Amino acid sequence: MTLSVNTLARPLVERLLREAATLGVAVRHEADGVCIVDAGLAVAGSVQAGLLVGEICLGGLGQVSLRAGAAASGWPTWLDVASSQPVLACLGSQYAGWSLAATKEETGGRKFFSLGSGPARALAAKEELYKELAYRDQADSGVLVLEVDREPPRFIIDKLLRDCGLQGPQLTLIVTPTTSLAGTTQVVARVLEVALHKAHELGFKLQNIVGGTATAPLPAPSPDGVQAMGRTNDAILYGGQVQLVVRGDDAAARDLALRLPSRNAKEFGQSFADLFVAAGYDFYKIDPALFAPAEVWVSNLDSGNTWHAGALDMALLQRLWLQQA
Amino acid sequence: MTLSVNTLARPLVERLLREAATLGVAVRHEADGVCIVDAGLAVAGSVQAGLLVGEICLGGLGQVSLRAGAAASGWPTWLDVASSQPVLACLGSQYAGWSLAATKEETGGRKFFSLGSGPARALAAKEELYKELAYRDQADSGVLVLEVDREPPRFIIDKLLRDCGLQGPQLTLIVTPTTSLAGTTQVVARVLEVALHKAHELGFKLQNIVGGTATAPLPAPSPDGVQAMGRTNDAILYGGQVQLVVRGDDAAARDLALRLPSRNAKEFGQSFADLFVAAGYDFYKIDPALFAPAEVWVSNLDSGNTWHAGALDMALLQRLWLQQA
Amino acid sequence: MTLSVNTLARPLVERLLREAATLGVAVRHEADGVCIVDAGLAVAGSVQAGLLVGEICLGGLGQVSLRAGAAASGWPTWLDVASSQPVLACLGSQYAGWSLAATKEETGGRKFFSLGSGPARALAAKEELYKELAYRDQADSGVLVLEVDREPPRFIIDKLLRDCGLQGPQLTLIVTPTTSLAGTTQVVARVLEVALHKAHELGFKLQNIVGGTATAPLPAPSPDGVQAMGRTNDAILYGGQVQLVVRGDDAAARDLALRLPSRNAKEFGQSFADLFVAAGYDFYKIDPALFAPAEVWVSNLDSGNTWHAGALDMALLQRLWLQQA
Repeated sequence: MTLSVNTLARPLVERLLREAATLGVAVRHEADGVCIVDAGLAVAGSVQAGLLVGEICLGGLGQVSLRAGAAASGWPTWLDVASSQPVLACLGSQYAGWSLAATKEETGGRKFFSLGSGPARALAAKEELYKELAYRDQADSGVLVLEVDREPPRFIIDKLLRDCGLQGPQLTLIVTPTTSLAGTTQVVARVLEVALHKAHELGFKLQNIVGGTATAPLPAPSPDGVQAMGRTNDAILYGGQVQLVVRGDDAAARDLALRLPSRNAKEFGQSFADLFVAAGYDFYKIDPALFAPAEVWVSNLDSGNTWHAGALDMALLQRLWLQQA
Repeated sequence: MTLSVNTLARPLVERLLREAATLGVAVRHEADGVCIVDAGLAVAGSVQAGLLVGEICLGGLGQVSLRAGAAASGWPTWLDVASSQPVLACLGSQYAGWSLAATKEETGGRKFFSLGSGPARALAAKEELYKELAYRDQADSGVLVLEVDREPPRFIIDKLLRDCGLQGPQLTLIVTPTTSLAGTTQVVARVLEVALHKAHELGFKLQNIVGGTATAPLPAPSPDGVQAMGRTNDAILYGGQVQLVVRGDDAAARDLALRLPSRNAKEFGQSFADLFVAAGYDFYKIDPALFAPAEVWVSNLDSGNTWHAGALDMALLQRLWLQQA
Repeated sequence: MTLSVNTLARPLVERLLREAATLGVAVRHEADGVCIVDAGLAVAGSVQAGLLVGEICLGGLGQVSLRAGAAASGWPTWLDVASSQPVLACLGSQYAGWSLAATKEETGGRKFFSLGSGPARALAAKEELYKELAYRDQADSGVLVLEVDREPPRFIIDKLLRDCGLQGPQLTLIVTPTTSLAGTTQVVARVLEVALHKAHELGFKLQNIVGGTATAPLPAPSPDGVQAMGRTNDAILYGGQVQLVVRGDDAAARDLALRLPSRNAKEFGQSFADLFVAAGYDFYKIDPALFAPAEVWVSNLDSGNTWHAGALDMALLQRLWLQQA
């Protein structure tokens, strides 16, 4: 596999920097040249910045676009996501899988934790997943997205440079708190990735996933971190719709379609923020089956057959997201 | 605010000129270099020209795209509009607010009247609105859209050059009669602007509007000027749907949602052309509350709350726009 | 008419070559420089490659985009097509009208047959249709799409060079079997062309068709050639929706709307693959009235009137395309 997710993302990063004023993001450089893009901390950011961050996260291998929802769809604004290289785009790049932690001693202040996502993960290739993907990027630039509510400490930046094998001017970090417009947008843009991640959990062979399209409603961000995170999950769990194109035998494709939708989890139908609080703020106590789109189509190229399972629950999302006027 | 709507629109104007043949528009230059784009007078123009003129009108700060309507949506072709800088894009640039009049004596022929819209308004900044926006563009090129059925007289062109502080080769004028495909398209692309204008009329603080998305069905132009204008209004009043993202207190956001939809006007439900004729062709005799989209969502970033009010009336639009076969 | 479909398609061809790895296509050159793009024979190709091949086929005069289907639409992934020059784009370029045949003796192997489609047709202008269109392209490069399951023999390539008046390095051939993702995608992208072709068959004056938009659901390709071809037809016949913008008298526009939809054919409601097999694999034994979109709007610019006829049959497509889970 010769595609470089960091190289393919580079023109999109350059557009983010060039159009910073229009997109409402702020760009600054560390003394050693590391570029920090604030997409929602001290500045407003925008949905449009989030769309671009979503495409950067997909390593330039996916399209993220805004679409008005028809009146009957139950929500005014939706995101469409598509990729011709969904495994590399979503798991090799977009997935928030790089655990970045620093103690109080290491930061010289508050302790820090973030899950890094986006192309630079594939330069460091610290995660087990990269062995399975048999992929490591060799680009001479890297970009990482941090879904946090403050800038990363210098300790973390140094670790990233080291692990990615980059010099300062070669690294761009994009900070997008979930409570911001760009942050909520780029998380909902993970609707296709969530399907791939669950397919992987279910043991479906990744090399047999050859295409994907997806959509989900875009909620308003909440200023409360837990609520904001909850909404981005609700958008996918109850409003996400995915079509995967696969290869292989029909039994595996049918099984994937039936087991993929979030409806297979016993918690289906509850606000994710409520579930998270009830689980003592511990993701690992929530049924992993819930982390999935609501409605799924799986099409098998080797047979031409398609299976459909699950369904959206827009009435639930309206109860969760709308005030009684 | 350092964004220049004329500078941001410039690459779009260059695309309009470069793709003139494909888009069905005609380009000519006055002796002093002023560029006149005919988007529907002597030439056919096109919906695609109208989309581009719509983005030019938004000062390069908004996206206008075509979307097929699902069968159940009641109409085959819709426009989506989005902006991360809706106040500057829609009110600072797109709004048709610059009154341009010339007497018979001044034109040496028929008297002329047009409301200028688009980026060059912000160079002249003749309107009260610019004080409120605290914005004036300083670009060295300008583009203005004139929704009229003939080319502007030289008297008007000279006035524009003077008021904008431009030399001939720096000014582009785009003429789009509402009876043309491009004309109808670029007016329906004002669906978001109509929401912002009414929000302003309702006294909502403009600086608190930080994002917007919108959609409306695209009617066929009528060859009759009043009917053509009526349809573009009907598209927004009865088929327009807008989501505004705001800041501030919830009472103001909720109030905006409830008061914004066109349904608040007593004339709701009548063809705009009929209303206009009944009002003696005087816009100012029509309830200003009617100039609004049909369905509205207002999301408040400061609370995370969203209110929804109004509803489309596609059955009415079908009665107005479709023949009985 | 000065538009050159081959020249306008050229930047899109260059993008196909440049992004070959991302799009999953393979590029190679014959000894004399003819460029052969494999979009689904020995390689996987992709839906995204098919979208681009669709725009190449339209001679750079149309947009083909992917859109997620709302849950109620009955299918997850749709194609939208639009053109401001529909006659030239669809009939002058996209229509698969150039019959390319070679005997066993001529190929030195198996006999070959393909209907060539896309811009290079307009260089050779071998078809009667070009007299009617009064169009012949004079570009110094050409691109042709071949919907076949193997590469064209050298005999055919030599004939193409001769008929198009091109040197080897000036010709690009794109091979897209219907059984591939790109192949199915680029055929469904003919939904607007199918409407224009039938309008022509019905005797509607081509010069009076001035704009068009269309959409259709994108089926999964079948590995079986007849089933794959059948599905692309079903997508248009039972899921295709088109709006044509025309000029002329209302009687002709109304008549076009009423006669255009596929519902006018007695075979309406049957799987196209079944019909094709029952007709002994002879297209010409199937009622030509069936080759049409399911639902149609015709808008007459000269009167402002619009007629609507036909309707989608998504329940039928679901029976044909979905497995019972």
